[in-house]
Amino acid sequence: MEFNVQQLERTNLYQLLVGCVLPRPIAWVSTQDVKGVCNLAPFSFFNVMSVTPPLLGFSILKQASERDKDTLANIRLTGELVVNIVSQPLAEAMNITCGSYPADVDEFELAGLAKSQSVTVKPPGVADAPVRLECTLHQCLTFGHGTGAGNLVLAEVRHIYVADQVWKNGAIDDVGLQAIGKLGGDRYSKAEPAFSLARP
Amino acid sequence: MEFNVQQLERTNLYQLLVGCVLPRPIAWVSTQDVKGVCNLAPFSFFNVMSVTPPLLGFSILKQASERDKDTLANIRLTGELVVNIVSQPLAEAMNITCGSYPADVDEFELAGLAKSQSVTVKPPGVADAPVRLECTLHQCLTFGHGTGAGNLVLAEVRHIYVADQVWKNGAIDDVGLQAIGKLGGDRYSKAEPAFSLARP
Repeated sequence: MEFNVQQLERTNLYQLLVGCVLPRPIAWVSTQDVKGVCNLAPFSFFNVMSVTPPLLGFSILKQASERDKDTLANIRLTGELVVNIVSQPLAEAMNITCGSYPADVDEFELAGLAKSQSVTVKPPGVADAPVRLECTLHQCLTFGHGTGAGNLVLAEVRHIYVADQVWKNGAIDDVGLQAIGKLGGDRYSKAEPAFSLARP
Repeated sequence: MEFNVQQLERTNLYQLLVGCVLPRPIAWVSTQDVKGVCNLAPFSFFNVMSVTPPLLGFSILKQASERDKDTLANIRLTGELVVNIVSQPLAEAMNITCGSYPADVDEFELAGLAKSQSVTVKPPGVADAPVRLECTLHQCLTFGHGTGAGNLVLAEVRHIYVADQVWKNGAIDDVGLQAIGKLGGDRYSKAEPAFSLARP
């Protein structure tokens, strides 16, 4: 099959991209608004963007509604966020926080998640997350206009928490981490080591 | 464990980031220099950045050597690239193209890979890749200086090829795709659907 991208409708283009750029890591992002209401939502257009400086990047697509996603609005206003890593036991709770809820809803409460106080930023983390990366906003880039336009949040990592049970021989144990990856549709994969290849 | 990022050495910071931001999708990027020499290399700091416009982003870390990676130099000079998706049968060949080779080495030949002619750009694709995304350079962003600094390549998708054997019921079949994801160290995971969660 050959697709001329200019002739594709937006929803078809979206399905093609999420159907082949995979498995995608998940940033489960906690923020706070100026009144202190907490927000929590997952984003799978996420990865490391730089090591020095340590930057994470995740893109928030513009929705069909006029209003910005709460995560984006909060980050723009406060400049602070926590990226929580989703282990498999947290998958159901993470999925609850996918929904669109009014800005005054605290998704931690909605999903029955305990909060952990952060060290360097105001937004709390997910207490049961195996890894939490406390970040400040570095830059926000907007591509295009209208539904489907990407808002790339570049976040500088300030502080990292790693749970003792996933810390092994001086490194994060990627089996113990039990991270999950996003595929197309509603599907997820496990980040279980399947094979190793030594670099040439 | 708690880590103050400012007190971490670069290599430790790198290990922490690649040990928790996972599984990472792999962009296997083919480019061509002005003389027509082809280059092929994999990058796992990769994801979708926007749907309208359709932008992929992948970051190339600055190496300890002075010279830019060939992929980055070629993209800056020609503005064209192909992102090939790595299926599991191609993993060994992909790993060969991880190495650092002189600019005049054609990694397709080195890894014994057939080329496919692209429709909208000059660089060829990997003939056996199940999906190929032909792109033009949208923007290149550089964060920081020195080793570990990220160069984020934002590439606009122009044309998409999907092999017939991974096209099923009007969508990419993510089981048939057999994509692989990058974990920490030399480890890889399979992007096999493990479970589904319907959005709330």
